[in-house]
Amino acid sequence: MLNSPLSAGAGLDLAAFAEALADRARPLALAHFRTPIGIEWKADASPVTIADRAIERALREAIARCFPEHGILGEEEAAVGIDRPVVWVIDPIDGTKSFITGLPLFGTLIAAVVEGRPEVGIIEVPALGDRWVGTAGGTTRLNGAPCRTSAVTRLKDARLYATAPDMFAGGETTAFEALAEQVGLRRFGGDCYAYGLLASGHVDLVAEASLKPYDFMALVPVVESAGGVITDWTGAPLGIFSGGRVVAAANATLHAQALDILRSTSEPDGPGAG
Amino acid sequence: MLNSPLSAGAGLDLAAFAEALADRARPLALAHFRTPIGIEWKADASPVTIADRAIERALREAIARCFPEHGILGEEEAAVGIDRPVVWVIDPIDGTKSFITGLPLFGTLIAAVVEGRPEVGIIEVPALGDRWVGTAGGTTRLNGAPCRTSAVTRLKDARLYATAPDMFAGGETTAFEALAEQVGLRRFGGDCYAYGLLASGHVDLVAEASLKPYDFMALVPVVESAGGVITDWTGAPLGIFSGGRVVAAANATLHAQALDILRSTSEPDGPGAG
Repeated sequence: MLNSPLSAGAGLDLAAFAEALADRARPLALAHFRTPIGIEWKADASPVTIADRAIERALREAIARCFPEHGILGEEEAAVGIDRPVVWVIDPIDGTKSFITGLPLFGTLIAAVVEGRPEVGIIEVPALGDRWVGTAGGTTRLNGAPCRTSAVTRLKDARLYATAPDMFAGGETTAFEALAEQVGLRRFGGDCYAYGLLASGHVDLVAEASLKPYDFMALVPVVESAGGVITDWTGAPLGIFSGGRVVAAANATLHAQALDILRSTSEPDGPGAG
Repeated sequence: MLNSPLSAGAGLDLAAFAEALADRARPLALAHFRTPIGIEWKADASPVTIADRAIERALREAIARCFPEHGILGEEEAAVGIDRPVVWVIDPIDGTKSFITGLPLFGTLIAAVVEGRPEVGIIEVPALGDRWVGTAGGTTRLNGAPCRTSAVTRLKDARLYATAPDMFAGGETTAFEALAEQVGLRRFGGDCYAYGLLASGHVDLVAEASLKPYDFMALVPVVESAGGVITDWTGAPLGIFSGGRVVAAANATLHAQALDILRSTSEPDGPGAG
């Protein structure tokens, strides 16, 4: 490991380091995928496994060793220094329900947030060998090749994803169903992979709720640098203190139409960072 | 093609021929996957693409050439001789919504039905390179290696899949939700892949409705020869005139418990073959 970016200390750009973190996550996830594995259920009824914990531990160790001055916000352990200029936001396994049922759509999400803005985002999908990397003001690449969102601008042509109907409550359900009625196709079951498909032009809209900052911060550079728009359901930019309602669209035209419908939800959203 | 099983005529066993059909489907599906593709919407609001039609056409031609005495029931063209001793039941692309949104979980389903009983079933998943082959009274293999269902026998430990909530109507929704409340984990978005995961022991239950015979006939040998149980929601064996309600379980103990709940649906189911 002496020559790897993980031990080289400062001086590397954040994107390269983020990719080194993804390189580290991949074999850890694959080592546990489709093997008998214990499952714990957290207070919010979300599952967690040894793989979630092992990946987050490894990434935190690498960050603390190379960039001790950076903060870390992850799903499985307490936040460290989230008021610092650079904060890493990590979801070791997004889509744990996929992971524990052998479905290869789970991913590791890694974001480098600088002064509150997500500068680098990675959707790493170990079981499919897919990795989307987005850098703010730059490009989004899938496995090294630049990708672009679709040119679909009418709701009736749009392909909409959400992970599960149970992520919506009360007025959110009404708003999501109102949107789903207007689109060409609605499908459940994407987790982070749906946002990657949006960045690559295969999906046009993703609307979700009940997300946490580690579920969405990495998605921002991936979606935006591919030409898409991603905000909360009021149209505000996503930050580590945003609520859990996220809408991503292939372009501004489509985003505005989706927002018009989702905004009709009147209940205020709670802060995602809690 | 002169030496391929597809042109060799009779004398081959049905499983080998079914695999040759899957070999033929795979490149046709991949040629259209993640490419711009026209989508038509059928009367039942299900999508169909040039890929669906091309695959079914190719498989029908191969069957008609090698086994002109066999019947064919497929999704996209009229049935031929479904009263004959051997009938091929084909879904060229199961999970067309996945296919047209770049999600790699779609599959080609191929069943050889002999005197009404599905003798061979294949779940061919082109984009993941996965193929489950089940033969009645034999084994189920994933990519050549034998696979087994799980030993989970309690509902509260079970991992339940269904493709989408919109496949259930009226009392079906109530019954499915009653089942979902008892299980350890419920996830939407599997299509045929969920039954493969069940055969491999990663998923324990799949309960669905609104299916057609070409959606489920191939699943029967895959599930049963891996140790699972698959029937309609009354517990009756699946045939080409079965209704569209299907429940698959890792074993008889789990199946009986799921059936107890699903049976509470009182409305009769319509015949799947229409």
